Amino acid sequence: MDTAVDSSVTSCAAPAKGEPYLLTPGPLTTALSTKEAMLRDWGSWDGDFRAMTTQLRRSLLEIAGDTAGNYDCVPLQGSGSYCVEAMLGSLVPRDGHALVLANGAYGKRIATTLGYLGRRHTVLDKGDYLPPRGSEVERMLDADPSITHVVAVHCETSSGILNPIEEIAAATAKKGRKLLIDSMSAFGAVPLDVRHLQCEAFVSSANKCIEGVPGFGFVIARKGALLEAKGRSHSLSLDVYDQWDVMNRTGQWRFTPPTHTVAAFIEALRLHALEGGQAGRLARYAHNRDVLVAGMHELGFEPLLDAHWRSPIIVTFFAPADPAFRFEHFYDLMKQQGFIIYPGKLTVVDSFRVGCIGQVDADVMRRVVVACAQALRTMGVEHAAPPGVALEERQLLAQQV
Amino acid sequence: MDTAVDSSVTSCAAPAKGEPYLLTPGPLTTALSTKEAMLRDWGSWDGDFRAMTTQLRRSLLEIAGDTAGNYDCVPLQGSGSYCVEAMLGSLVPRDGHALVLANGAYGKRIATTLGYLGRRHTVLDKGDYLPPRGSEVERMLDADPSITHVVAVHCETSSGILNPIEEIAAATAKKGRKLLIDSMSAFGAVPLDVRHLQCEAFVSSANKCIEGVPGFGFVIARKGALLEAKGRSHSLSLDVYDQWDVMNRTGQWRFTPPTHTVAAFIEALRLHALEGGQAGRLARYAHNRDVLVAGMHELGFEPLLDAHWRSPIIVTFFAPADPAFRFEHFYDLMKQQGFIIYPGKLTVVDSFRVGCIGQVDADVMRRVVVACAQALRTMGVEHAAPPGVALEERQLLAQQV
Ligand SMILES: Cc1ncc(COP(=O)(O)O)c(C=O)c1O
Ligand SMILES: Cc1ncc(COP(=O)(O)O)c(C=O)c1O
Repeated sequence: MDTAVDSSVTSCAAPAKGEPYLLTPGPLTTALSTKEAMLRDWGSWDGDFRAMTTQLRRSLLEIAGDTAGNYDCVPLQGSGSYCVEAMLGSLVPRDGHALVLANGAYGKRIATTLGYLGRRHTVLDKGDYLPPRGSEVERMLDADPSITHVVAVHCETSSGILNPIEEIAAATAKKGRKLLIDSMSAFGAVPLDVRHLQCEAFVSSANKCIEGVPGFGFVIARKGALLEAKGRSHSLSLDVYDQWDVMNRTGQWRFTPPTHTVAAFIEALRLHALEGGQAGRLARYAHNRDVLVAGMHELGFEPLLDAHWRSPIIVTFFAPADPAFRFEHFYDLMKQQGFIIYPGKLTVVDSFRVGCIGQVDADVMRRVVVACAQALRTMGVEHAAPPGVALEERQLLAQQV
Repeated sequence: MDTAVDSSVTSCAAPAKGEPYLLTPGPLTTALSTKEAMLRDWGSWDGDFRAMTTQLRRSLLEIAGDTAGNYDCVPLQGSGSYCVEAMLGSLVPRDGHALVLANGAYGKRIATTLGYLGRRHTVLDKGDYLPPRGSEVERMLDADPSITHVVAVHCETSSGILNPIEEIAAATAKKGRKLLIDSMSAFGAVPLDVRHLQCEAFVSSANKCIEGVPGFGFVIARKGALLEAKGRSHSLSLDVYDQWDVMNRTGQWRFTPPTHTVAAFIEALRLHALEGGQAGRLARYAHNRDVLVAGMHELGFEPLLDAHWRSPIIVTFFAPADPAFRFEHFYDLMKQQGFIIYPGKLTVVDSFRVGCIGQVDADVMRRVVVACAQALRTMGVEHAAPPGVALEERQLLAQQV
């Protein structure tokens, strides 16, 4: 219940000398104590490690607001995409039909995955950054009664848009369908509370807003959905039911768990709680974003997204129109100054991304802006203003609010 | 070419105070410097990390003896079982037929996995510990021309038997079929050289004989086999072709890699080379095993396997016949003395296992024996001799040599 913010946590320590800040959507800059938790080897069969697994599952359910015990948490070895695939293969029946709400790379990957699984699916493709709206979802569900599941991306990390998940959840529930969410880059910072948001299941991974290191992800699903998943998965490794069942019976992961990653995650969870949980983390990330966007604006950089849609996770900026700007060069100049940024993923105009998550605070964000200014000077870019076509793109989005 | 053994490596440093030795088949006790390599965050998109991935792939191919460049190495996020599944789903065609040589839990898991994948398979089940022989394989391949692949376990970790992989490979090649190997617990210590052993592919993982920490595995496959795998996988996450193709084109893992685990693995590879590569490691592990077995023998403990079949990876001992012996109690007493051992997996008689791999040396093995003696005293077990039925089991095996 104590949501007091410990300033020793929110003012983030610098990484070791020579190590750049990762302004990327994970892997990210983690706390030193999180990494130090990996300085020990754990036996995966041993009771001490089983207790860590139990604690991890319980903590994640608490963050998800599952006070009623209706959900369970199934950690799974591998990257976040593995968990998305595991969720889809285990929770969408073989004769199901999924409506995929796509507005970027991760939504598209969901459709690709369903293709591999041979699951019938329909894609609502909103392009690079337009949000899927509740009303559209309702219309599509009305038009096709065979649709059993809606699959949505919470924060579409490829643009940084925060999709209107409450609207989507309400539409899906209203039409009596089931919602599956890829909340990879959002959970732990953006509210996702199963008491308020009706969903069948969602996934996230260790190395996003909980600020662990990469190596596993987790599916949080209604217990009823887990029971129904028995015998459904296309894959032994990605069988959520089987992992859940064995874990509940033995306290163990079916296959060798990434023990060090789990130990780091336990420490990351401690820091998460210490910072005030999801609310505390959201406050820091949102402040990071605001400081970043304001500073970049002064340099002439424009974010792709309208403030209404801008997530506190990662911000897409248009590349400057100035022909002296080359992303590769900019990347190297930023890296030399201690900051790793991220390329953009838009199809129409050039862009780059700066993450706001991980052990970075407003002070770091200010230094990122200073480094950007320096990089521009070195490249001989006079104005960071984007090309006109980029601003036209933005207009499209402004109409969506 | 330099196979000189650096004694600073082969005499293993003790784990940190209060941390037990892991005498288990992975996760295992790793070098402190391997764990310390995880004290840094890496951007997965960054050139520095791509270079680490390239180095890792090249080093593994060298250990596999691929001087001709006929094979490639595809690392894959997840545990070892994920890699087995990925290999099976990607390399066995949908209309293929696999002969699975099973003599323990991991052979059985291969059959289970093929069941999930809907791949036709025939199982030669040798029970808990009898080795599948080349002559049997030949007979089965003669009898069923529809069999396209033989799938074998190199060291079946559930008993510790070192299966006669050369014999199996020769039989498979003679009959014109393809061999896939689960070399999870053997590769890096037991010879597996693609110049001498004809195989289509094999898998292993980070946390076995290379002594890294868990989080990924790798498939080493003939390039021709990788090319043929295009479009075949049942799973996006476990699609070996796709992972290979993207990695070759971009230097990147398709999805977020376990960056810290990879960094630890690079250090583990350095230590592996320093110890004299596969040969140096084999020498240490074999010595560990011999010291252990001799010491345990003095206490009355008998290993399940005849010396001919005993791997240098892990040794199964029969539980003493004395009714005062209870494994759970024995486990706790060993743990109190700083050693984590492993339960047995035999179906007929009670047993336990002691691993010989990881950063442990002969001195540690001697201390394990002393700890066992102390545990027996505490439990009031007078003689550690196994029941007569166990020795009858052993007779069965002795006839197989
Ligand atoms: C929204 C979203 N979905 C899925 C993924 C894929 O996760 P991973 O790269 O761990 O497989 C990511 C990764 O950033 C993501 O942001
Ligand atoms: C021979 C063998 N195959 C497969 C596996 C499974 O590996 P993992 O537990 O990493 O999935 C193991 C693990 O010890 C093994 O020894």
